Amino acid sequence: MAYAFVCFPAFAQVTISCSSPSWGVAARPRRLLPAVRCASSAPEAVAHETDLFDLKRYMAEKARRVDDSLDRALPLRHPERLLASMRYSLLAPGKRVRPVLTLAACELVGGEESTAMPFACAVEMLHVMSLVHDDLPCIDNDELRRGRPSNHVVFGEGVAVMAGDALHCFAFAHAAEATAGVPPMRVLRAVAELGKATGAEGLLAGQVVDIECEGKEVGLEVLEYIHLHKTARLLEAAVACGGIIGGAEEEEVERLRRYGRTVGLLFQVVDDVLDVTRTSEELGKTAGKDLAKGKTTYPKLMGLEKARLLAEELAAKAEEELQGFDRNRARPLRHLARFIAHRHN
Amino acid sequence: MAYAFVCFPAFAQVTISCSSPSWGVAARPRRLLPAVRCASSAPEAVAHETDLFDLKRYMAEKARRVDDSLDRALPLRHPERLLASMRYSLLAPGKRVRPVLTLAACELVGGEESTAMPFACAVEMLHVMSLVHDDLPCIDNDELRRGRPSNHVVFGEGVAVMAGDALHCFAFAHAAEATAGVPPMRVLRAVAELGKATGAEGLLAGQVVDIECEGKEVGLEVLEYIHLHKTARLLEAAVACGGIIGGAEEEEVERLRRYGRTVGLLFQVVDDVLDVTRTSEELGKTAGKDLAKGKTTYPKLMGLEKARLLAEELAAKAEEELQGFDRNRARPLRHLARFIAHRHN
Repeated sequence: MAYAFVCFPAFAQVTISCSSPSWGVAARPRRLLPAVRCASSAPEAVAHETDLFDLKRYMAEKARRVDDSLDRALPLRHPERLLASMRYSLLAPGKRVRPVLTLAACELVGGEESTAMPFACAVEMLHVMSLVHDDLPCIDNDELRRGRPSNHVVFGEGVAVMAGDALHCFAFAHAAEATAGVPPMRVLRAVAELGKATGAEGLLAGQVVDIECEGKEVGLEVLEYIHLHKTARLLEAAVACGGIIGGAEEEEVERLRRYGRTVGLLFQVVDDVLDVTRTSEELGKTAGKDLAKGKTTYPKLMGLEKARLLAEELAAKAEEELQGFDRNRARPLRHLARFIAHRHN
Repeated sequence: MAYAFVCFPAFAQVTISCSSPSWGVAARPRRLLPAVRCASSAPEAVAHETDLFDLKRYMAEKARRVDDSLDRALPLRHPERLLASMRYSLLAPGKRVRPVLTLAACELVGGEESTAMPFACAVEMLHVMSLVHDDLPCIDNDELRRGRPSNHVVFGEGVAVMAGDALHCFAFAHAAEATAGVPPMRVLRAVAELGKATGAEGLLAGQVVDIECEGKEVGLEVLEYIHLHKTARLLEAAVACGGIIGGAEEEEVERLRRYGRTVGLLFQVVDDVLDVTRTSEELGKTAGKDLAKGKTTYPKLMGLEKARLLAEELAAKAEEELQGFDRNRARPLRHLARFIAHRHN
């Protein structure tokens, strides 16, 4: 399938090499960066018995500050219906994985949390707006999101379209305006990063190809194109923006980028696994949706156990990208990769 | 109606004072900047017989370069359906009034056209994305735009939503990344300007209030709130961004802002007039739409002749804001105001 060679530039940068026979990267060795050892040959990256870290508490504290910042950034004001719709989705309880990644990456390279907070908020706004639009009847037609009725169910389709658009605008305005104490060049670079990650060469490319492939049999290469764009690209940008704002060196930004991309793919593999193993109540969204729609998923292509193994391998690969950073400062991102690999909803 | 006092901050900055008895600003003198003379008492701003300028040629040349830049910035690539949808609307023949305003404002304050081109393109992308989403069945349900079938009629609703979103992302990424030779602080300020102009405190606020008021009787204050947000705010930002990128002084940016806002209101008053006086063929979009929908318009509220007079007064007011700038360099913006006042479609 020549498609992958021409159209999958992001995919070609994935550096994972592992033993799964259906892993589609091996056919394109020249486009790959040097292969790294997979989980099975790198046991030191799998378990660190002494690496104690209360990730749950870390995540909860960061998420609380993100929630506070989002709430303060977007108070209810006129026109109330629009603002209420924006706030309904933006402030819905969530794990805030993406903004926490931004904050953690900024701190990893020596930056302060507060300087990265506007970008962390912007990343979440862009994520949430993509969910609001995805759920629309003319796209995924999903009536349940984060355990509550979707935005358009509550506010109507027209307002949901506009609330998504308004979150979009606000994300960029907020990132550009509220980021303080950072050289403007860095802020600009991070703004461009967010724009590219969410647009026609990022998230939306994945979304469109995903819809085009609905009901069709696709192979691992196309499945990975979809996930690397639809899910991983924004996670990559979330981490990269944190690094850029925190003043990371070029090579550090690239390592953070690869970490984010790998974690993004991991996120989706786990999502696919959860879709077949969990109930709607546990997930807070419609379960078994992919299967019902005849969508290709990792468990469908490689079986449930191999998909779980792939998740382990990706988690190990993500951890490897963090080597070279200060080990102590890297703990949150290291444990976040493990958390994403082992989450239950 | 207390609504206007609380919710219409942009409205309160309009500095027009004129003799129309139904002009609703006079009731809030403390929130107004010093009143300026209206057209009838400032004949020198109405007609300049010796001020010859080939606006048609100027506009055509600028629009051609904007078209070229848009075409180059967004080539057709994978995923083709998404890009084709974006290009279908973005490259549809249009007058490019907003980007021309950006370029003209930049040159007015001594900047070079090329430095403002990425922002000119971004302004057009944001304008076009708002049209694509406005036309959706769940919002304005309009099947004709710029003389051609609307985006969702050709590409389907889902793709139209995503193409609009992708234009949105690209606008910000392009403005942030492609602007060269300008201090990053200026670029950042202009990015924030665009985000605010198109979001919940700008264009979308006007859009939502417009929809909420459909089928209701509204007064001039609400009508002006709608137009100052839905139409004028982006025109204001187009001009302000040109000034900011060109290195305008603070006070110059404010004057440009007022010029843009006045021209924006003018644009809408003329639009309302054209809606009742022109055919769909002449307009390139559905004519008589406002009337059919029972929408409040300027002609409906004040009669056709008074609406025409208001347009003249706004054109004169816009020209007055240009006094103090180099008279020669201000010619394009001066004539643009007249052109908008006297356009036929």
